[in-house]
Amino acid sequence: MINEQMYARGAESSVIREIFSYANERKAQIGTENVFDFSLGNPSVPAPDEVRRSIERSLTLPPEQVHGYTPAPGAPEVRSAVAASLNRRFNTSYTMADIFMTVGAAASVCCTLNAVACPGDEVIVIAPYFPEYRVWIEMAGATCVEVLANQETFQIDPAAVAAAITERTAAVIIDSPNNPTGAVYSRANIEALAAVLEDANAARAQRLGHPQPIVLISDEPYREITYGAEVPWVPSLYEHTVVCYSYSKSLSLPGERVGWVLVPQVSEGARRVMTAVAGAARSLGFVCAPALFQRVVMDCVDVPSDVAAYARNRELLTSALSKMGYTYVEPDGAFYLWVRALEPDAEAFCEKAKAYELLPVPSNSFGVEGWVRVGYCVAPEVIERSLPAWQRLADDYGVTQA
Amino acid sequence: MINEQMYARGAESSVIREIFSYANERKAQIGTENVFDFSLGNPSVPAPDEVRRSIERSLTLPPEQVHGYTPAPGAPEVRSAVAASLNRRFNTSYTMADIFMTVGAAASVCCTLNAVACPGDEVIVIAPYFPEYRVWIEMAGATCVEVLANQETFQIDPAAVAAAITERTAAVIIDSPNNPTGAVYSRANIEALAAVLEDANAARAQRLGHPQPIVLISDEPYREITYGAEVPWVPSLYEHTVVCYSYSKSLSLPGERVGWVLVPQVSEGARRVMTAVAGAARSLGFVCAPALFQRVVMDCVDVPSDVAAYARNRELLTSALSKMGYTYVEPDGAFYLWVRALEPDAEAFCEKAKAYELLPVPSNSFGVEGWVRVGYCVAPEVIERSLPAWQRLADDYGVTQA
Repeated sequence: MINEQMYARGAESSVIREIFSYANERKAQIGTENVFDFSLGNPSVPAPDEVRRSIERSLTLPPEQVHGYTPAPGAPEVRSAVAASLNRRFNTSYTMADIFMTVGAAASVCCTLNAVACPGDEVIVIAPYFPEYRVWIEMAGATCVEVLANQETFQIDPAAVAAAITERTAAVIIDSPNNPTGAVYSRANIEALAAVLEDANAARAQRLGHPQPIVLISDEPYREITYGAEVPWVPSLYEHTVVCYSYSKSLSLPGERVGWVLVPQVSEGARRVMTAVAGAARSLGFVCAPALFQRVVMDCVDVPSDVAAYARNRELLTSALSKMGYTYVEPDGAFYLWVRALEPDAEAFCEKAKAYELLPVPSNSFGVEGWVRVGYCVAPEVIERSLPAWQRLADDYGVTQA
Repeated sequence: MINEQMYARGAESSVIREIFSYANERKAQIGTENVFDFSLGNPSVPAPDEVRRSIERSLTLPPEQVHGYTPAPGAPEVRSAVAASLNRRFNTSYTMADIFMTVGAAASVCCTLNAVACPGDEVIVIAPYFPEYRVWIEMAGATCVEVLANQETFQIDPAAVAAAITERTAAVIIDSPNNPTGAVYSRANIEALAAVLEDANAARAQRLGHPQPIVLISDEPYREITYGAEVPWVPSLYEHTVVCYSYSKSLSLPGERVGWVLVPQVSEGARRVMTAVAGAARSLGFVCAPALFQRVVMDCVDVPSDVAAYARNRELLTSALSKMGYTYVEPDGAFYLWVRALEPDAEAFCEKAKAYELLPVPSNSFGVEGWVRVGYCVAPEVIERSLPAWQRLADDYGVTQA
């Protein structure tokens, strides 16, 4: 017996993983230094020293105190520390009741989707979008509805969202700083989205006689990875926001799987959503977030992310590519550069780039045509050594230098 | 918007958690030493020192090497270490291809259920059973079919399983050493179950023209917690076995969430099941098992579990209760004693026990009537101090001493 849907999910090749595998093969053939792998989103900055010190401190405690089950929503002192940190940063008044610790961002989004969407519902994503959103939305029995971002700025297009909302819209997922574009949604942009959602909620309340607000899922694994732009605090702009967070990028702990869901407990409806998040976590097989790393979160909740290396890479890459005549979206956050392919077919462009050992990810993986994602969470030498290859690729297409 | 099924899962009270909360309240009222909380299954033996040493060793490595993403099925060297350890113990010839590292036993079972069951299928559990099985089976869209164990020995009743099998039976879950009874299924018992499943598979192959074997899910978090009884290696007795394992009890790491699924890659069908396990893990939001604790598993895979403390508690409790005239199932494994309630209604019995500050769990939580689960993963003083209370409770019911 087999579940064919699960089999297909396991068998379908991830384009990103395929490029990564190809890169490793190619490195073995022609030398690591001659292959320019820009496919991954694995932080190249090591975890800060505070992480090691936190773990060492925990190792001096009785093991059963460190490695035992925590309550399903997380250790109370950890949830309180997270709430207090948010309050310092965003002038809010959260308590531990607003926080549910999770096994990383994927778990945060999966628990939230299963909590707020029912089979047959629709969930809107802003294309280009992180491809796993579709997998998780469909696992919750809902339909993934793609709404194009503004294809120049890659900000949300509120009118397009408005046009896509139906009676079955349960949630909208946004992801800012954005993977794959590096765009950070401006305050005005999120306010415009909030207005669209409020209007839809009001219309729905009038038709159905009771409010069934659309939930805004703000997936924020890249919140701390920014280069000066403001990343607005979404719950302060739209009441029915659930924030999904992870320490994978901010503390460079992607393998340790720890994050949280925030559901501000401002109404009976919000309290019901939090209960459903807990029910989803239980039903999906998440017993608690890893205990030792919950303590790491408590100890490191205010440790700033080290974005200096990413900022240097960003500068190196953007200044060189712009001189060569490439166009790209100004990357305000995350560690991805969204570069316009030099022909309409991004996959064909990537094939051509391969001849120069350049390995970005074609935009088709993210639901749009004509762009590539260049992950610059790499050693700076990779970028430096790749520049002649980018130049030859541009020459090949006859691009005029800027 | 809310998913009412998830809300209900989050809102429904766990009897075990309620008893635990009551115990804590009561301890605050009358003193910790006067309350005898036997409700939990949290290991009282601390994690072995090798765990600490493994973590310390990892902390000397570059952080990105320790805390980075591993491949979804786990780090190759970890999977190989697990396979090699099984081969030494069970005379098998597994490789890393047979092992998928998971976020603990709950994740192991959820990934397996979603891989092998389809909506509308049935999954058989042996009652009494771990109550989360029902939650996870229903999350996979399947129906939980309870089959009573032999109510004297609490071994599997193969004829009862045979009678419960239908065209829609996708899997049978067994759990030995058993939570809640402490029974260990004998080799003969599992062989008899295997024969029933083989017969059903043969009949099904004949009717449907193609084999759709029933999967035997062997959930083994308590494998190492035994007192001399053999725990047979199930895949050597039934080909279509998937083993779900966790280090929560064997290494006393319940909060760290690390385990594995073993699908022996003996056939094309088995390879498809493993692919579906990977697809389920992806779909449920499990990106990889926690990376640091994957390394702990690699380093500690052959560290013996410290069962001496549990063995002493078991001896202390069983010798005293048997003298008082209580009857119970001989506990061959795990750290639970399955005691016959002194009246048919286990909940009423537990209410009476409460008057003596004795807090076991009524068997109704596990799908059967008339018993209680006494978790003896507690400090030995708790057992010693509780004995006069057990005596008074027996006296209350007029039980004749043995």
